[in-house]
Amino acid sequence: MKGFAMLGLNKVGWIEKPTPAITAMDALVKPLAVSPCTSDVHTVWEGAIGDRHDLILGHEAVAEVVEVGSLVKDFKPGDKVIIPAITPYWETVESQMGYHQHSGGMLLGWQFSNVRDGVFGEYFQVIQADGNLALLPDNVTVEEGVMLSDMVPTGFHGADNAEVAYGETVAVIGIGPVGLMAVAGANLRGAARIFAVGSRELCQKVSKLYGATDLINYKKGDVVGQIKEATHGKPVDKVIIAGGTMEAFEWALKLVRPAGIISNINYLGSGEYFKVNRVDWGLGMGHIKIVGGLMPGGRKNMEYLSNLLKYKKLDVSHLLTHRFKGFGHIEEGLLLMKDKPKELIKPVVTI
Amino acid sequence: MKGFAMLGLNKVGWIEKPTPAITAMDALVKPLAVSPCTSDVHTVWEGAIGDRHDLILGHEAVAEVVEVGSLVKDFKPGDKVIIPAITPYWETVESQMGYHQHSGGMLLGWQFSNVRDGVFGEYFQVIQADGNLALLPDNVTVEEGVMLSDMVPTGFHGADNAEVAYGETVAVIGIGPVGLMAVAGANLRGAARIFAVGSRELCQKVSKLYGATDLINYKKGDVVGQIKEATHGKPVDKVIIAGGTMEAFEWALKLVRPAGIISNINYLGSGEYFKVNRVDWGLGMGHIKIVGGLMPGGRKNMEYLSNLLKYKKLDVSHLLTHRFKGFGHIEEGLLLMKDKPKELIKPVVTI
Amino acid sequence: MKGFAMLGLNKVGWIEKPTPAITAMDALVKPLAVSPCTSDVHTVWEGAIGDRHDLILGHEAVAEVVEVGSLVKDFKPGDKVIIPAITPYWETVESQMGYHQHSGGMLLGWQFSNVRDGVFGEYFQVIQADGNLALLPDNVTVEEGVMLSDMVPTGFHGADNAEVAYGETVAVIGIGPVGLMAVAGANLRGAARIFAVGSRELCQKVSKLYGATDLINYKKGDVVGQIKEATHGKPVDKVIIAGGTMEAFEWALKLVRPAGIISNINYLGSGEYFKVNRVDWGLGMGHIKIVGGLMPGGRKNMEYLSNLLKYKKLDVSHLLTHRFKGFGHIEEGLLLMKDKPKELIKPVVTI
Amino acid sequence: MKGFAMLGLNKVGWIEKPTPAITAMDALVKPLAVSPCTSDVHTVWEGAIGDRHDLILGHEAVAEVVEVGSLVKDFKPGDKVIIPAITPYWETVESQMGYHQHSGGMLLGWQFSNVRDGVFGEYFQVIQADGNLALLPDNVTVEEGVMLSDMVPTGFHGADNAEVAYGETVAVIGIGPVGLMAVAGANLRGAARIFAVGSRELCQKVSKLYGATDLINYKKGDVVGQIKEATHGKPVDKVIIAGGTMEAFEWALKLVRPAGIISNINYLGSGEYFKVNRVDWGLGMGHIKIVGGLMPGGRKNMEYLSNLLKYKKLDVSHLLTHRFKGFGHIEEGLLLMKDKPKELIKPVVTI
Repeated sequence: MKGFAMLGLNKVGWIEKPTPAITAMDALVKPLAVSPCTSDVHTVWEGAIGDRHDLILGHEAVAEVVEVGSLVKDFKPGDKVIIPAITPYWETVESQMGYHQHSGGMLLGWQFSNVRDGVFGEYFQVIQADGNLALLPDNVTVEEGVMLSDMVPTGFHGADNAEVAYGETVAVIGIGPVGLMAVAGANLRGAARIFAVGSRELCQKVSKLYGATDLINYKKGDVVGQIKEATHGKPVDKVIIAGGTMEAFEWALKLVRPAGIISNINYLGSGEYFKVNRVDWGLGMGHIKIVGGLMPGGRKNMEYLSNLLKYKKLDVSHLLTHRFKGFGHIEEGLLLMKDKPKELIKPVVTI
Repeated sequence: MKGFAMLGLNKVGWIEKPTPAITAMDALVKPLAVSPCTSDVHTVWEGAIGDRHDLILGHEAVAEVVEVGSLVKDFKPGDKVIIPAITPYWETVESQMGYHQHSGGMLLGWQFSNVRDGVFGEYFQVIQADGNLALLPDNVTVEEGVMLSDMVPTGFHGADNAEVAYGETVAVIGIGPVGLMAVAGANLRGAARIFAVGSRELCQKVSKLYGATDLINYKKGDVVGQIKEATHGKPVDKVIIAGGTMEAFEWALKLVRPAGIISNINYLGSGEYFKVNRVDWGLGMGHIKIVGGLMPGGRKNMEYLSNLLKYKKLDVSHLLTHRFKGFGHIEEGLLLMKDKPKELIKPVVTI
Repeated sequence: MKGFAMLGLNKVGWIEKPTPAITAMDALVKPLAVSPCTSDVHTVWEGAIGDRHDLILGHEAVAEVVEVGSLVKDFKPGDKVIIPAITPYWETVESQMGYHQHSGGMLLGWQFSNVRDGVFGEYFQVIQADGNLALLPDNVTVEEGVMLSDMVPTGFHGADNAEVAYGETVAVIGIGPVGLMAVAGANLRGAARIFAVGSRELCQKVSKLYGATDLINYKKGDVVGQIKEATHGKPVDKVIIAGGTMEAFEWALKLVRPAGIISNINYLGSGEYFKVNRVDWGLGMGHIKIVGGLMPGGRKNMEYLSNLLKYKKLDVSHLLTHRFKGFGHIEEGLLLMKDKPKELIKPVVTI
Repeated sequence: MKGFAMLGLNKVGWIEKPTPAITAMDALVKPLAVSPCTSDVHTVWEGAIGDRHDLILGHEAVAEVVEVGSLVKDFKPGDKVIIPAITPYWETVESQMGYHQHSGGMLLGWQFSNVRDGVFGEYFQVIQADGNLALLPDNVTVEEGVMLSDMVPTGFHGADNAEVAYGETVAVIGIGPVGLMAVAGANLRGAARIFAVGSRELCQKVSKLYGATDLINYKKGDVVGQIKEATHGKPVDKVIIAGGTMEAFEWALKLVRPAGIISNINYLGSGEYFKVNRVDWGLGMGHIKIVGGLMPGGRKNMEYLSNLLKYKKLDVSHLLTHRFKGFGHIEEGLLLMKDKPKELIKPVVTI
């Protein structure tokens, strides 16, 4: 079969590989819609997870089931399914403890285009199909569905980890597609005031549709200063970091209240460390919680999040700025994510 | 001063009382807008809290500060404030443990028209003003503000105690003003599908504005059956009981999933007990949590919930079906709540 | 192979069955030590889960691995393992949501002697071996290890669900082996005062070893009255129900504070319902949480709880009042659990 | 009245001050037992909170009530009370939100020897007496009681914030009196294996009495290496930082598992920042939570923690290595805390 792969650092291209074999628990599927992601860019051009050779890229897809293993109970060939970016083994101790994202070791719930071929192939294997597939609701398109693989769950996880509650003030740093979904997630957890920090006009405009109340452009001055001016000096309740550099943590510490939460969902691709300023952190006594986490994967999360689309509580179509038709356009989509033209939020390729 | 009072069981009327004295921590305020509540009806005509004589009624108000005690720091005469229905003493062990509603004993955080004169007087005393008042935001009217005293926090507390999460299916039993706010609260915590159980047409219509996706009329058949039909037999994640009789708990147990939550916010005015069916409750092993709780009071809750109005995340105006002008109309409003004509959701009296 | 089985309601006996087949995820094991449980008694002589024919009984065992499926990674023939009473499928939506006890439906995480043959056979099948086995620590005997299958996790789950915290006062109703472990569990979560409610002298004595501070004999008077006398009328923070009849819930409601928790771990074998008294429950507004749940199963829980034995934080030997040697003694052990002589806490049969 | 004060940076001495005035909510008390604390040392000799002049030191005391304000309901002259180090105003928004430690602003729940005179005076004022005093149980000595002011709640808060659960492995870095109480706190939340990291022989010995299973001496080699060797390379579940320098956070990040918690209770007196290593923190995706917090104050916490002494679940006497009799010995005690001789854990001065 054909697949679009990382050939090595800084090199991508089409390769041929055998169709993957599946175990008794797995499914073989073929993609119906896929979307390239900034993480693919990190992987190839920044070597964020180290070198890889002939690894098929991609981890966002809606697909059709082609074959299932003998122990699979709930899915059958022909089913249209959403595949989450994170597809862990579910019987591990880590999964049992509630952090399936690290099933088998740190970040190893992330399988596609990391420790196994990704979704940019004619076919791909989904381990533990009953645990990692979800039916696409009838009234959700494949293009919309593919936003559930990563953008929605990652953004919403940021709001969940920030424990956003009714009436809170939240700052979201970075409003690419993940940050926009963090805005939507904070809004859907009852945030009142939401600062959206970003510079691109389109993203700012869309952030308002998702619930942002205040737009902050980091190119127009100091982020902390701009937000503090708007709040008359009051700290915000929570900060969600969905983009930017390590410096974002320093802003966050200056913005957040005692006992506030800084919730990171930005894949930190480079830099050695970030700093936690002793005074901003309340001399170690301020109850400011700093946490960052990979999105939850698996079927349950897909089913529940897809309900938000099914029942019209979330409209992901604002994210879909570039639509391509045909497997061959995957490269084009990926290069868009690399170059990030200002009119781009997210490309999707239907097949 | 004049006040509209419970004279005794089944008797209400205008009385004269001395203006209340305040302590160093308190405020004296005069109402700008008040709203009668079903609880007032329970108190007078069902004797739900026992007999009371010459007790001024009412616990929902926006007011103006007239005088503050010497230890009050944050409020001053002339401030326009929202007063929550629950105004506890904050230094008690109960308040320190997070259940200020029971500060000093079961339900004793509820002071107005229970253990002290309520808000239907020319003046009333608010204990611990710094802890129990909140400034009315500039862009919120007094009529809207008074919905923050009880309707919004009670409804939202139902959703909070139900721990509603993204994409869940929630049934709200009872869609009077409190139930409608439970619908809104569930929606603002990210529920996908919301069953609104009620019979009045206006309430049904308004429930849709607040996020209900399915309307269930208990007069048109068995509630459990109707909901299970809509879900193809699947249980719901959470049930919020905001009205109805003791039987509502039996429905809820038949509706909710294993490890689901039944969250009661209905003041249970009569009946000796409700039944927990052994089999529905999973032989005692089903992890179905049953909880019921009085709304949180105090300043913090008012400030955060009022932010939802200030930043246009919640529109309470749909509740305000009857508006009166003048202190003298309080009786009229209360009788409306007693008679519940079908075009009524909530009356408000501005003064 | 031979097994000790429920032949039908009220009938037990030895039967022959084929050695069970296993799937790619499973293990076949042979028991080294087993313990009969009150649940077996309920199953056979009360028909608590309905009729069953030729179902091998038992769900508490330490065993040796005989064979593993091709997808099993972490266990191999010869390993000595603890088997939890609850052995769910881990990839289900229920397991992903954190209630694996109800994986596939209410209580279906409970497989042994319920929906599949139990541990009283020469061999038995453990589904999803990597998720449901745990190595027995070197310094823990097989007799001690078998207490980890059910007694320890069930008792400790009662304390976990009661969210016992430092310095709290807890009442444990019922001090058979599960109740004793609830006492130990409450103690190990930092409870200060623990009321142990039971009548048998040995159990009372042992409860003190596990941290009980006050012994209450329900045969010597009203339980509520005795406890309230000891506390000078103050409510307790939490009640764990580990035995008794449906009436225990009524006691609990009279004992517990506002915002307290009633945590049931008693398998409710009979009775149609229990009553929640409206006034005791704070008119529906008291924040008193009522919950009951089947013990958590799986490998993680076994590994963490066995650490308590390994590092000498918990001594289960006080439970082991009757020790038998030889497979044939299983019937004798079971009848002891049925008859409950006063010197019995728990029998164990090594093989 | 006389008091032992910070005269300025690096200078201490006895001064005369007027007896403090109290408000209607407060109590005036006289100390029965006090204990100097490392924080006093930081305050005076490191200027950790900036310069102060003629500020009476001390924040750990058991005292006798001398006078109460007119609104105080539950205490009266003659009562023997424990005074927590943290005595906030309870009606503030911060207290209502559950972080009374920051009532009025970051760390401002800490009043004594910070924003108001401390307990090393003949008398001192306790604000909001009903919220900040607790009766000393009859069977607890004043010397033991004074350990409840700061050592017990601070150490236990470390274990609480680490969310220690049954069977977990916990590393406690720093085993002075606070670290020892963190060991005891972790043990009382059900930890199985506890690494105690410290060098002083007496502290190591006492750590075993409080539940430590493994002693790690940072002077004998790399802490991370020693612990990882003992665990055969496995990470620990939780790390509590109760001493050491900013480097302790770097150790903690190398020790803790994905989704683990690093809980700081060490007052960070110097250094500009600590580093969070990108890779150790799972590229921002590892769900490793970093939190640090000032102990909870107030009456509730004192009552519940004192129950642990009353019911013999915690023996603080192992901490009391140096006992003095007479007000004049306060200076001697403070200098001991400054010099930290190896046979010292904690001095107490009874008056």
